[in-house]
Amino acid sequence: MTNKLSFEALDEMVRRAPFHRWLAVELAALNDEDIVIRMPRREEMVSSVTHGYIHGGVLASLVDLTAVFAIAAKLGRGAPTVDLRVDYHRPAITTELRAIGRVIRLGRTIATAEATVLDADGALVASGRGAFLPPSA
Amino acid sequence: MTNKLSFEALDEMVRRAPFHRWLAVELAALNDEDIVIRMPRREEMVSSVTHGYIHGGVLASLVDLTAVFAIAAKLGRGAPTVDLRVDYHRPAITTELRAIGRVIRLGRTIATAEATVLDADGALVASGRGAFLPPSA
Amino acid sequence: MTNKLSFEALDEMVRRAPFHRWLAVELAALNDEDIVIRMPRREEMVSSVTHGYIHGGVLASLVDLTAVFAIAAKLGRGAPTVDLRVDYHRPAITTELRAIGRVIRLGRTIATAEATVLDADGALVASGRGAFLPPSA
Amino acid sequence: MTNKLSFEALDEMVRRAPFHRWLAVELAALNDEDIVIRMPRREEMVSSVTHGYIHGGVLASLVDLTAVFAIAAKLGRGAPTVDLRVDYHRPAITTELRAIGRVIRLGRTIATAEATVLDADGALVASGRGAFLPPSA
Repeated sequence: MTNKLSFEALDEMVRRAPFHRWLAVELAALNDEDIVIRMPRREEMVSSVTHGYIHGGVLASLVDLTAVFAIAAKLGRGAPTVDLRVDYHRPAITTELRAIGRVIRLGRTIATAEATVLDADGALVASGRGAFLPPSA
Repeated sequence: MTNKLSFEALDEMVRRAPFHRWLAVELAALNDEDIVIRMPRREEMVSSVTHGYIHGGVLASLVDLTAVFAIAAKLGRGAPTVDLRVDYHRPAITTELRAIGRVIRLGRTIATAEATVLDADGALVASGRGAFLPPSA
Repeated sequence: MTNKLSFEALDEMVRRAPFHRWLAVELAALNDEDIVIRMPRREEMVSSVTHGYIHGGVLASLVDLTAVFAIAAKLGRGAPTVDLRVDYHRPAITTELRAIGRVIRLGRTIATAEATVLDADGALVASGRGAFLPPSA
Repeated sequence: MTNKLSFEALDEMVRRAPFHRWLAVELAALNDEDIVIRMPRREEMVSSVTHGYIHGGVLASLVDLTAVFAIAAKLGRGAPTVDLRVDYHRPAITTELRAIGRVIRLGRTIATAEATVLDADGALVASGRGAFLPPSA
């Protein structure tokens, strides 16, 4: 399925929300299959000073927004999250995360999308999916 | 089931993580049934300047940490999140959120807990549950 | 919130689907807070002849239909399942299961409901929640 | 990652449980990437005589067992389900379903796997994922 938004238009949308600016997320890639979002580590994201793990809530945020923008790439607009599910696979001790987002199904009333979060070495840190309300709903 | 931690000890634990300090979460109540965590709104949490909704990722963070500390109250220590599900019920346009956390089941290998997030008027904003690894696992 | 359906009307609806007849589910209680559905064990439901555990898919079916009928009690009609989450707490080796269903939130576009499954001794076996499309959606 | 079980050994395991025999599931393919399980429709599986849709609980069962056997292919043994999440994409009115299962992550304490359910025309009907306890846990 082709995209309705250019890289520049989607990147601008990704950076717009105040919380996204705090997360410093930006679009790293966009193609017909998936999108990639990049997020640098910042010290306030951490769940433990000793271990330096990025907090699960930050990873959930990244899964949510990456899935939303995978849908936005196709529909031209974001879609409110109905529900979100996140699996945590490994502690995230890294300088940067990359999240790959992909639409599973664009229905008329519900859209489903997933995201996979990798650390700077490419190791799987978290993944998840959500149900979203497409603009038409 | 009785608690292993006092209000002061749990509150100190709630405030410890750098990300929790950024969220400015604090313990508001602790009893044998449930715990209550309070989180004030801050402008960087918002998903849209126009609407002023608190971002779904921040709500997911609050569901996650409230469920974790409901378990910590019983076990004396936090429990890493295996997976998390969050349902979004209403946009959160509010000065403060309150999250009520409750243990569903403390198993030997898996603990399950849930949290319900209310706005300053007591309206249901989000809720969810997760699976966690108890210290014994 | 008051119910739109009588015990008899909801029980008739619970028993109607061919798969529900196979599960032999029936309404055991209906009040303003929640509903209770009863399901007897049958040998084809089992996941292991040696252990005699009721299969997780059967428990998921029970969580799903109990949440659907908790919504139907309020709205007068069932609601298609958008997505479902089930947590498994204990192996179910029992002669009968009881599932308690409760609406979490009846929105205009999405309804959320939960169910808790107990064995014949009242021990917690499984629980879960789902998002559903209310008739108005 | 290579498989620990042959097609014949995994197929025998898939068919063993009484509930699996009722579902009449069988292994259709096994390779290093994924497994495919086939399930014919039977009339007792249906959620409505009028529409003939296969019940969501049956689809949840198929997602669960397909994810479990994707793990079993790698580990040589099944893994109890910790929790299961299923998204419903389309009503399933079909003579046969095929479910493709894939391991997302084999951790030491938790394994995560997903399954995608297609109808006889190859259309996406449901998908989901779960957390499981690997034999080593």
